[in-house]
Amino acid sequence: MSSSTIASRLKIHRDGPEFSRLVWGAFRIANNRETSEIASIARTVDTCLDAGITTIDHADIYGGYRVEALFGEMLATRPDLRNRIELVTKCGIALTGPARPEHRVKHYNSTADHIRRSLENSLRNLKVDHVDLLLLHRPDPLLDAAEVAEVLEALVAEGKTRAVGVSNYTPSQFSMLQSKLTIPLMANQIELSVTHTAPLYDGTLDACVNYGIVPMAWSPLGGGRLFDREKGNPQLVDLLTSLAEHYGMPGPGTMALAWLLRLPSKPLPIIGSTDPERVTALARATEIEFDLQDWFQVLEVASGRPVP
Amino acid sequence: MSSSTIASRLKIHRDGPEFSRLVWGAFRIANNRETSEIASIARTVDTCLDAGITTIDHADIYGGYRVEALFGEMLATRPDLRNRIELVTKCGIALTGPARPEHRVKHYNSTADHIRRSLENSLRNLKVDHVDLLLLHRPDPLLDAAEVAEVLEALVAEGKTRAVGVSNYTPSQFSMLQSKLTIPLMANQIELSVTHTAPLYDGTLDACVNYGIVPMAWSPLGGGRLFDREKGNPQLVDLLTSLAEHYGMPGPGTMALAWLLRLPSKPLPIIGSTDPERVTALARATEIEFDLQDWFQVLEVASGRPVP
Amino acid sequence: MSSSTIASRLKIHRDGPEFSRLVWGAFRIANNRETSEIASIARTVDTCLDAGITTIDHADIYGGYRVEALFGEMLATRPDLRNRIELVTKCGIALTGPARPEHRVKHYNSTADHIRRSLENSLRNLKVDHVDLLLLHRPDPLLDAAEVAEVLEALVAEGKTRAVGVSNYTPSQFSMLQSKLTIPLMANQIELSVTHTAPLYDGTLDACVNYGIVPMAWSPLGGGRLFDREKGNPQLVDLLTSLAEHYGMPGPGTMALAWLLRLPSKPLPIIGSTDPERVTALARATEIEFDLQDWFQVLEVASGRPVP
Repeated sequence: MSSSTIASRLKIHRDGPEFSRLVWGAFRIANNRETSEIASIARTVDTCLDAGITTIDHADIYGGYRVEALFGEMLATRPDLRNRIELVTKCGIALTGPARPEHRVKHYNSTADHIRRSLENSLRNLKVDHVDLLLLHRPDPLLDAAEVAEVLEALVAEGKTRAVGVSNYTPSQFSMLQSKLTIPLMANQIELSVTHTAPLYDGTLDACVNYGIVPMAWSPLGGGRLFDREKGNPQLVDLLTSLAEHYGMPGPGTMALAWLLRLPSKPLPIIGSTDPERVTALARATEIEFDLQDWFQVLEVASGRPVP
Repeated sequence: MSSSTIASRLKIHRDGPEFSRLVWGAFRIANNRETSEIASIARTVDTCLDAGITTIDHADIYGGYRVEALFGEMLATRPDLRNRIELVTKCGIALTGPARPEHRVKHYNSTADHIRRSLENSLRNLKVDHVDLLLLHRPDPLLDAAEVAEVLEALVAEGKTRAVGVSNYTPSQFSMLQSKLTIPLMANQIELSVTHTAPLYDGTLDACVNYGIVPMAWSPLGGGRLFDREKGNPQLVDLLTSLAEHYGMPGPGTMALAWLLRLPSKPLPIIGSTDPERVTALARATEIEFDLQDWFQVLEVASGRPVP
Repeated sequence: MSSSTIASRLKIHRDGPEFSRLVWGAFRIANNRETSEIASIARTVDTCLDAGITTIDHADIYGGYRVEALFGEMLATRPDLRNRIELVTKCGIALTGPARPEHRVKHYNSTADHIRRSLENSLRNLKVDHVDLLLLHRPDPLLDAAEVAEVLEALVAEGKTRAVGVSNYTPSQFSMLQSKLTIPLMANQIELSVTHTAPLYDGTLDACVNYGIVPMAWSPLGGGRLFDREKGNPQLVDLLTSLAEHYGMPGPGTMALAWLLRLPSKPLPIIGSTDPERVTALARATEIEFDLQDWFQVLEVASGRPVP
């Protein structure tokens, strides 16, 4: 069972960039002094690269708008890295807080002007001349599809991002925006885990297959719920733990990722750990292919009932 | 903030008729003796025209099947009006009551025969030779799409209505009927207000953008719920009231309409007041453009939580 | 009211096989010694044929994987039957139990290998060289659309099934699989009855019309709920009973089927009775056409409220 059948890299769309199957999310690096240290960030990225993780997920707002700049400082000290990684960032959410005193309420901003300024600001902060994928962070009821299509096409044409996509979109939001674009949206980053399986049934993953794109999966470990024996599902942790032993894997988290990797829509899970040992352990998820019956046993225990 | 950015008129579809951005709904004119008076109806219509509202919404069933005939009596006394207004009517609901003693149960009727007879009856009652838009009032589980498509196309070809559309349709009901038609459905009249925002998320407005049609919004003030401090949301009324002051607008109702007008799908709110002063006040909603953050503050207070 | 307006046969798709409007489901024949007797099965099938029911619904798993073989034994004794019936079967569910000791958990299997082996096994059990329709029994989150499309096309090309379709699919699951196929899916077998009307509203029947296919309706009598005065809806039974008297029909079950037959999507109800008298009574549902108002009265009583 140790011969890998999960490709460690894939194109996110027929005409799109190639990403690593597992993605590292930088959203936590501003959380405390230790994770914010430039050397510490570099160490985590090196660990990722050693484990085959080359795609790194950002958003303008992460860490109260501070994560991209921290990451950019690190990149400035390590000019060898840019060509070995793919960068994803997002725009469109406007947070309140000290970094944006002019914001009175959490809101979205999908104006062409904001999208352009946000990406250009991300490039400055990251100290790069382009990202590989720019996502609209949330579906916005005020998004004007024609206006947004025009600015996204322009940003790709100018080389500021190689590809564009969305995040947290329903299929109808996706097709509405796509209908105004002459280039394909190449990703939908959604919440997806063994404890959040709605996208398997509500059409979200079906639409990804239909459009020929891959989903990116945020909170692929259920945002910690998975391992919380109080608030979570202890039977599920027990099952994943015993399967980890069976497959020779480090622990239940690795198995939870491997469970996602088995989906035919080929989701790219985003792992947010800043602990190199943990990253290395989770990255082993690509080494195994879940047995069919084991997969359904996990689904049964996670959902609390057999399949219909 | 007083320079208008909301067009006061728009085409409901690339190839469709031009409507006023606000629509007056005649559904209440049969409610009591005062509003039923011919002079009173004419006065309200004149008020609408003075305020830029030229589109008037009917249905065969309004007022227990009496509204169209009252309106038609008024039109007969005012031959100057027909060319200055656009008329919308609907068919397909069959009410019980004294006007239809043969009806044993409230039901729908989407047979070709009923649709034709209903529109022809509306034309007789309204004393006009055509309407500008005919809508199927409710999705009907017994609607035979091929049969309905044929009669709708015939009624347009005969000049009895300039355009056809639907009301209260989901996107899949819309596409099912459209798939049998060789002419485009040009409207979907739906419930939409700051207190009923489901269409922003469930694909209904996305589909309107996809099909290049405008939604018409019924109960755009929440059918009174909006201003009911007991059953409604007092914080929302307070916020809309203070925003009205800030924008120099007459009151919270005008702001609730302006909030809808900001949506990129360009909904046409239908106001049902028979009070000329109220109509004039609400019509001022087109004079302002809601500030982005104000718009999201209203959404947050209406939904009880910040955007995700 | 006794002149029939319901066609007793129809093509399930423009290019597909012709089925009888009512379908007999063989799923119960292994339930007990009496229904399992070869003579008893033959008697029920003869009753069906006399009543115009020529289409017979199977699945590999019915009766704990035993129904198909029982039916095949009967067919071997009655070589006159094969050309007078259409056979439907299904694959993709993997049950636990004595017939499949290697199954540890109820699961789905949509691999090309399983689909092929399952159909070939059904043909051996049924003792026929082809079926008329093969359905994927349940939407499977692990279904690889490209792989499944290839095997379904091959099985049709080899003449092992005349047509392919799905069961219990949502519209987005249907379009996802169809997008990889070069031949049309020709059926979606779903739960549908006067006590389970969700498909009238959730897009499932709309999609059938859009794709030009007919739905097959399982549990068309609500799986017995319909006639359970304790757990069911006694007003509904009373109404259907009085309507049966009015239309000169045998009883409420026949009326419940006639109610379904009135839907414009032309569903094919699957009746599972093994009692010849009951089958004959239910089959009379095609003899009447439900009056429009009667139909809506049934809907009102079934749903507990008038239509909106």
